[in-house]
Amino acid sequence: LKIFSLNSNKPLAKKIADAVGVELGKSEVRKFSDGEIQINIEQSIRGSHVYLIQSTSNPVNDHLMELLIMIDALKRASAQTINIVMPYYGYARQDRKARSREPITSKLVADMLETAGATRLLTLDLHAAQIQGFFDIPVDHLMAAPLLANYFIDHGYEGDDVVVVSPDHGGVTRARKLAENLKSPIAIIDKRRPKANVAEVMNIIGEVKGKKCVIIDDMIDTAGTITLAAEALKEKGATEVVACCTHPVLSGPAIDRINNSSIEKLIITDSILLPEEKKSDKIEIVSVAELMGDAI
Amino acid sequence: LKIFSLNSNKPLAKKIADAVGVELGKSEVRKFSDGEIQINIEQSIRGSHVYLIQSTSNPVNDHLMELLIMIDALKRASAQTINIVMPYYGYARQDRKARSREPITSKLVADMLETAGATRLLTLDLHAAQIQGFFDIPVDHLMAAPLLANYFIDHGYEGDDVVVVSPDHGGVTRARKLAENLKSPIAIIDKRRPKANVAEVMNIIGEVKGKKCVIIDDMIDTAGTITLAAEALKEKGATEVVACCTHPVLSGPAIDRINNSSIEKLIITDSILLPEEKKSDKIEIVSVAELMGDAI
Ligand SMILES: Nc1ncnc2c1ncn2[C@@H]1O[C@H](COP(=O)(O)O)[C@@H](O)[C@H]1O
Ligand SMILES: Nc1ncnc2c1ncn2[C@@H]1O[C@H](COP(=O)(O)O)[C@@H](O)[C@H]1O
Repeated sequence: LKIFSLNSNKPLAKKIADAVGVELGKSEVRKFSDGEIQINIEQSIRGSHVYLIQSTSNPVNDHLMELLIMIDALKRASAQTINIVMPYYGYARQDRKARSREPITSKLVADMLETAGATRLLTLDLHAAQIQGFFDIPVDHLMAAPLLANYFIDHGYEGDDVVVVSPDHGGVTRARKLAENLKSPIAIIDKRRPKANVAEVMNIIGEVKGKKCVIIDDMIDTAGTITLAAEALKEKGATEVVACCTHPVLSGPAIDRINNSSIEKLIITDSILLPEEKKSDKIEIVSVAELMGDAI
Repeated sequence: LKIFSLNSNKPLAKKIADAVGVELGKSEVRKFSDGEIQINIEQSIRGSHVYLIQSTSNPVNDHLMELLIMIDALKRASAQTINIVMPYYGYARQDRKARSREPITSKLVADMLETAGATRLLTLDLHAAQIQGFFDIPVDHLMAAPLLANYFIDHGYEGDDVVVVSPDHGGVTRARKLAENLKSPIAIIDKRRPKANVAEVMNIIGEVKGKKCVIIDDMIDTAGTITLAAEALKEKGATEVVACCTHPVLSGPAIDRINNSSIEKLIITDSILLPEEKKSDKIEIVSVAELMGDAI
């Protein structure tokens, strides 16, 4: 069993290797002068079960190509199995044709990984569980909700004075899972656009008055939805709003929005590396290293 | 027949469409806030023969993913055939395992294109003609040498006082092709490294003394080889050195090296878009638009 890290999230890869109790494999991924990726695997892997850790986070195309090229190199070096450990699966939101002539990039990514030579995928909180079906190789789909639940329980968020809030209908299953762990009820935000080009109205289904609200989502990207949801909850009488997500995409205005919102704490995982400039007093990180390590 | 351009070389795409006598298809390729590629095809292509123009030049991973995602979208929108017009084929130098555990990224790219749904490839001066065999779909392999020859003939480089020089043994076929057109002899630069960590020695096979030398290569990347070759030719008594290539990769120190070298003119094609900051008085551009257009 050998574990290699690519460039997207080396600290997590190190922690996963520690959790499994092996050293990270010796390899390096650089760029040639013209931007093409150069890979050096500095130890034999012939006949080995290789685990390759890479999140296809921003810059997604570079991270994806690093992964595909590394898979190609491992295949040609006679690895016995090539197991992709992908804490964050990029392009997951392009998972269906919502409009005519749209690509289904999540399926393209699945096909690319298989064509390159991946033999198994280990991933975490896919944007849509259906993406598992885009693969013909085995997919292990892990969930961060229990980890996030532990954080909240340790910090006194439990029972009937807490409400777990799903920011949309798609996230109800995830919210219910967290709520079960916290022994709390759930609420759902029902976004409606009364007319085209009119701002969305946030209706809340469920009781939040006088309660501590824990919003949960699979990813937070520009943080528009979650910060508006927080305001709506406060307006309806929530005493406190905290939020959590598995994947801190946090692009564009996300950090400013969170810092300026009524969200008091944001709990994220390290599925995507949080760069220095995005750190904030409001943000706490829970590691998925043991979870991923146990699955290896 | 519909022609679409992606983002790598829109001026060339426009010229190719003009040469064919059709309008460029309406589409747009942008990035979401987190760097993922978003594609909009704004017209029906159901049942059409679609030509997609894209060079996988720097940033190669972005350009390649644009292409793959667009192919996926076209396939799902029921295009009848998807013909890739790739004036510059990126990752072509990673075409074999020169050392243990190297990837063969050119083959990976071939597999990706086919898996995404490409049905034919039209390309120009592949770094190695063998790359054609990496595909199971038809590949049309065009050559810029006749175009470059026309330029030289128009500018009085012809006959016995001219020598066409190949900068290495791999480029002899290309040099011979240009030489036939110019009715000139050829010479070959024979690089040898006498010992490890000792500078290469450039021996010249063929007569260059008192002659005008035309160096030809498939691509110029950092311009190390070609500028050293020019000095060696001058030392051996060449009266003038000019150079040409199909693919102006021109990364890193390339432009400075060329400007400071004894190369008097560099003739390139527009297979890769030359950005404003790389323009130089020494560089002249010959367009491959008609050549590519004729092949469509
Ligand atoms: N990287 C991205 N950033 C923002 N929106 C995206 C991204 N990728 C896909 N989408 C869009 O998000 C929608 C799917 O999101 P959802 O409804 O949450 O599953 C689709 O309309 C996609 O076009
Ligand atoms: N983008 C690149 N820039 C520089 N060298 C490269 C690049 N891609 C591949 N190579 C190396 O170039 C060599 C092949 O070049 P060649 O001998 O000219 O076919 C191989 O050793 C590759 O590792």
